[in-house]
Amino acid sequence: MASIKDVAKLAQVSVGSVSKYLNGGKLKEKTTIAIEQAIKDLNYEKNTYATGLRTNRTHTIALIIPTIWHPFFSELAFYIEAELRNYQSKLILCNTQNNYENEVAYISMARQNKVDGLIALTYSNVDEYISSEMPIVSIDRYFSEKIPTIMSDNFAGGGLAAEKLIQAGAKKLAFIGYGSIYDNSTRDRYRGFQAYCQTHGIESEIIYYEGRHHEFNEKLPELVQQIIINKAVNGIFVVNDEQAYEVLELLQKNKVRVPEDVQVIGFDGSQQSTNIPSSLSSIRQPIPAIAAAAVKCLINVIEKKEAPLKTILPVTYHPGATTKE
Amino acid sequence: MASIKDVAKLAQVSVGSVSKYLNGGKLKEKTTIAIEQAIKDLNYEKNTYATGLRTNRTHTIALIIPTIWHPFFSELAFYIEAELRNYQSKLILCNTQNNYENEVAYISMARQNKVDGLIALTYSNVDEYISSEMPIVSIDRYFSEKIPTIMSDNFAGGGLAAEKLIQAGAKKLAFIGYGSIYDNSTRDRYRGFQAYCQTHGIESEIIYYEGRHHEFNEKLPELVQQIIINKAVNGIFVVNDEQAYEVLELLQKNKVRVPEDVQVIGFDGSQQSTNIPSSLSSIRQPIPAIAAAAVKCLINVIEKKEAPLKTILPVTYHPGATTKE
Repeated sequence: MASIKDVAKLAQVSVGSVSKYLNGGKLKEKTTIAIEQAIKDLNYEKNTYATGLRTNRTHTIALIIPTIWHPFFSELAFYIEAELRNYQSKLILCNTQNNYENEVAYISMARQNKVDGLIALTYSNVDEYISSEMPIVSIDRYFSEKIPTIMSDNFAGGGLAAEKLIQAGAKKLAFIGYGSIYDNSTRDRYRGFQAYCQTHGIESEIIYYEGRHHEFNEKLPELVQQIIINKAVNGIFVVNDEQAYEVLELLQKNKVRVPEDVQVIGFDGSQQSTNIPSSLSSIRQPIPAIAAAAVKCLINVIEKKEAPLKTILPVTYHPGATTKE
Repeated sequence: MASIKDVAKLAQVSVGSVSKYLNGGKLKEKTTIAIEQAIKDLNYEKNTYATGLRTNRTHTIALIIPTIWHPFFSELAFYIEAELRNYQSKLILCNTQNNYENEVAYISMARQNKVDGLIALTYSNVDEYISSEMPIVSIDRYFSEKIPTIMSDNFAGGGLAAEKLIQAGAKKLAFIGYGSIYDNSTRDRYRGFQAYCQTHGIESEIIYYEGRHHEFNEKLPELVQQIIINKAVNGIFVVNDEQAYEVLELLQKNKVRVPEDVQVIGFDGSQQSTNIPSSLSSIRQPIPAIAAAAVKCLINVIEKKEAPLKTILPVTYHPGATTKE
C-alpha cells in the first residue's frame, strides 16, 4: 500500500506538504494539483491508525443497548447510524443483553481510546463505572452524575394514553408494567397516567412491578384476569409495546375481544421495519428526533462544546387496531 | 493517562519488559508481579491505536446490511455481535439502505485499515470494488470472485413451502416474489418451489419480478386479485416475510380469509424480538447458525487459515396462524 512518503516523492513535494493537504491545510494551487494527481495515481488511502494516534479521534461511537433484536432499538440504531454519517463517524454496536459484565466491558472500551464516545441506553447500576469526564450521552435514563440525557416526554405520554382511552369510550382504566429499580422513565409513564386519571376523576388501577422481566411475566396471567374479571377494566395502558403484545395474547386466551370489550394502548410506537406498520395502538416515541439529538449532543461533548443536560422530546399518539379510535 | 513508560518506571523494569508482558510473553515472576502492581497502581490501560498500528489488527468487523431496522437483519446482527465477542472483536454497523454509494464507502473502510474484515449482505453490483484479497464473507449472495458465502438452503426451503401448503390442504399453489438481478438466493426459493410442484404434479403459478421493491409493490394488488379470483389459488408461498405481510394485507382487503380460504407461507421466520413470536407461517432461516458460520469463516480468512467457499445451512418450517397446519 502506498504511504504518505510515496505520495510526496511522486508529487515532488515534501512529506509536510502532503500531510498539510490531508489535514485540510492551504497550499499553493500547483502543489495541491501535484498531490492530488499522486494520490490518484498511487490509489493512496489515509492510514487511520496513524491518524487516530495523532488526533486522538477514531471517529467511532459505541451504541450500548440491551439488544438490537427489538424493533425499538433497531429503529433507534438505524437512525443513529445514519446521523453519525453526517459526522464521518461509525457506529460500534454493543448488545449488553442486560448483562452487567457486558455493560462494564463496553464502557471500559472508551477508556482504552477505542471509541470517541458512548451513547448508552442501559438499565443497570453502572454509575460507579461512569464518570462525567468520559464523552457519554444517555438515552431514556438519568445518571447520578452530570451526563446529558435525551428522553421522550414519558409523563405526558402516560397522560396522553389515559386521555385517548377515555376518548375512545373506555370507562375504567388500568396501567400495567414493570421496570428495573434504576428505570425512572417507565415510572414517569404511570405517574403521568395516574395524574391524568386523578385530575379527571377517572377510576384506575395501577399495577407496577419493580424487578425482572421473567418474574413479572409469571405474575401477568393472574393480574390480567384480576383486572378484567374482578375490576371490570375496559381500557389498559401497558408500559411498552412488547408487554402490550403479551397482554393482548392473554386477553385473547381469556376470550376478551380487543377493542370491543377492552381497549389497549402500548408505549414506543416502533414498527418491525420501514414497510410493516404496527397494528398496536401506541404512544410513539420520536425515534428519529431522539437519534439526532443524541448524536448532536455527543459530538458537542466530544468537542468540548456546550450540550444541554436534559432534552425531553414530545410523543404522539399512533392509533392502531387495538382501540376504537 | 498513564503510558507504558510510566508503568516501566514505577515497576523499575525496562519498557521492553512491560511490552513483553502486555503481549503475553514470559518473564521472571518477580518482574511480572512488579509490572502487574504498577499497572494496577497507575490504572494503566493499553492504548489500542498503538496496538493496532503494531499488529495491524483493530479487532473490529464491519457488518454491511441493507438496514438494521428489519427483524431478520436485527436478529442476525444480534447473533453476529454475540459471536464476535468470543474473538474479542467488535461489530461496526453499516446500513447501506440499498444505496450503492454507501456500500462502496463502507467497503473502502476495510482498505483504510479501519476494520479487520467485512461480513456483507448486499444486493448491489459491488463486484468491482471487492477483491478476494480483502477479508470478506458474504451472506445470502454469491460474488463472482472466490469469496466465502454462507447461505440458507433456499432451494430446499422453496420445496418445503410447497410441501407444507399441500399437506395443509391447499390444492392450487402460487409463488409471489421479487428480487434484484444480483440476487440468486430468492431465485433459488422459487426454483425449489417450482421443482417440487413439477415433480408432484401440482398446479402452480409463478410470479417473480426482477427489479425494485416499490415497482413490485405497485403491481402487487392486481397480481394478488388475479391469482385469487381468476386462478383460484388457495396456497401462496411468498419470497420473504415482509412481502408476506403485504400479501396478507391485500388478502384482507379482498375479504379473503386466511387460513380458511387461502393459506400463506413466508420465508425468513424471523421474529420482532426474543419475546414476541411471529404469527406468520414461514420457512425459518437458521439465523444463529448463519451468524456463527459467518464469524468463524471470516476469522479464518483474516488469519489466513482455510475457510469453506460455500456453507449451505438447513432451513426448518415454522407453523403459524396463516396455515391450517
